[in-house]
Amino acid sequence: MGDMQRIGFIGLGIMGKPMALNLIAAGYILTVYNRTRIKTGVLEQAGAKLASSPKQVSENSDVIITMVSDSPDVQEIVLGNDGILEGIRHSSVMIDMSTISPSMTKTLSQRLAEKGASMLDAPVSGSSWAAEDGTLSIMVGGDKEVFQKCLPIFETLGKTIVHIGPTGMGQVCKLVNQVIVAGTLASVCEGLLLGSKSGVNLDNVFQAITGGAANSWQLENLGSRIIKRDFAPGFTVKLMLKDQRLINQASEELELPMPVSSIARQFFYALGQKGLGEEGTQSYIKALEEIGETEVK
Amino acid sequence: MGDMQRIGFIGLGIMGKPMALNLIAAGYILTVYNRTRIKTGVLEQAGAKLASSPKQVSENSDVIITMVSDSPDVQEIVLGNDGILEGIRHSSVMIDMSTISPSMTKTLSQRLAEKGASMLDAPVSGSSWAAEDGTLSIMVGGDKEVFQKCLPIFETLGKTIVHIGPTGMGQVCKLVNQVIVAGTLASVCEGLLLGSKSGVNLDNVFQAITGGAANSWQLENLGSRIIKRDFAPGFTVKLMLKDQRLINQASEELELPMPVSSIARQFFYALGQKGLGEEGTQSYIKALEEIGETEVK
Repeated sequence: MGDMQRIGFIGLGIMGKPMALNLIAAGYILTVYNRTRIKTGVLEQAGAKLASSPKQVSENSDVIITMVSDSPDVQEIVLGNDGILEGIRHSSVMIDMSTISPSMTKTLSQRLAEKGASMLDAPVSGSSWAAEDGTLSIMVGGDKEVFQKCLPIFETLGKTIVHIGPTGMGQVCKLVNQVIVAGTLASVCEGLLLGSKSGVNLDNVFQAITGGAANSWQLENLGSRIIKRDFAPGFTVKLMLKDQRLINQASEELELPMPVSSIARQFFYALGQKGLGEEGTQSYIKALEEIGETEVK
Repeated sequence: MGDMQRIGFIGLGIMGKPMALNLIAAGYILTVYNRTRIKTGVLEQAGAKLASSPKQVSENSDVIITMVSDSPDVQEIVLGNDGILEGIRHSSVMIDMSTISPSMTKTLSQRLAEKGASMLDAPVSGSSWAAEDGTLSIMVGGDKEVFQKCLPIFETLGKTIVHIGPTGMGQVCKLVNQVIVAGTLASVCEGLLLGSKSGVNLDNVFQAITGGAANSWQLENLGSRIIKRDFAPGFTVKLMLKDQRLINQASEELELPMPVSSIARQFFYALGQKGLGEEGTQSYIKALEEIGETEVK
């Protein structure tokens, strides 16, 4: 596989930008590309080279990381005009850290394999805050040997790094993650609203219940923000809506009943309709407050 | 208030027994009572005195702790024949650590106040495992000065101890806790079942997602047991069914829509119908497996 110091990074959004900066800080040589030019400024200042297409990124990199929104985005970046497939070299590795469908992952992996290149699916959990701290949880699908060779890169970006299984299994793991994330958040919101309407002091409640069986990442990180009415995104409603679509699709393909998950999904739809796509997922409380005609306070 | 070394303890079930043993180990002089005699053996061996009625317990104690199942149980213990009210002395304190309705709590507190005694509502979270370790989370309602005086007792039993507010607010806090516990568990179950049916290795998934935004007490403690198919109770389905009734009652009184909570409740009903009341709440997965005709493996 040779040297893996030259990394290409495509997708510099809320997650991608801090991740790319962490790689530069760790000494990697980065070539970056983003659909909208405006987002690359801070990366260039940090020393990244700017490419004009995904193809150019792949020509100049041993490892190409993609961190974009959705299955069609990754498809376009890999298979489209001036895409990665046109520039990628034999024995290069593409690491897709986006959250996309397991089936699209398998298709793209096969196309890259035809060129002699490898692909890992490596979606992450932990929000933009964890991306900044380099403490993401990374769930990786694909060849185990390729995973081992990329481990130093993953260790720059995350804290919990697990090889889940063959191609696509990183994405399956991420779906499991998001089912639990969404349902846990929904429960936190319903609990806090019940408390609020009952007249209890929520700061005290928060202090007590984070010490017991109700505690969760969602309660600690988003419950606290809900109480302060801070709706800045660690993870946006818009991205959750996309993940919900992937969950819905998986549930449909498997014909698996997912009652709580499907109810929580309706509230994310409502948030989308209310135009709150750019807010953090903790805005879930707003949809609940609306149907309950009450507010957390 | 005087000396508070003599503690009465009523209710020696899955939670009460280890709590009483921890108090004895800390040097308190205990008088215990349980409806069914058989459960007191281990306490007597540890040095507890056995009383023949709640009345007798209260006659011999500065502080009386009750840890039973439900509102009618506490009502009977306090107001019934040979109940606490008949024996309690001026300036004694009753601490009800059961999970009961906030309105029953207020009624009992008032009756005790008429006798010059105080009452704290102090329900706990954290399962029997935390009761054994003395690491419970304790949420306390009632007079703050009385709370302060009882703090050494709480510190023997728990780790996170919070005065939530006036009488009944400990119970409100516990309801919030249980809404979140049940919904989080439901989401963990749906996520794991989706992963299992997708063919992913759940041990790897568990390792990955406990490191990120999906993590929770429920995932760490019950998700792990679900994967191992260990259904021993940290908290029984039967007790959760009682808490669900309290949540349903609160939601109805407040006319507060709780969509995810109400769906999760239906599955606890199903577990009750299946005769799984004595199993741990992680048996939730069994109801989900039944409607999905699939199993976590």
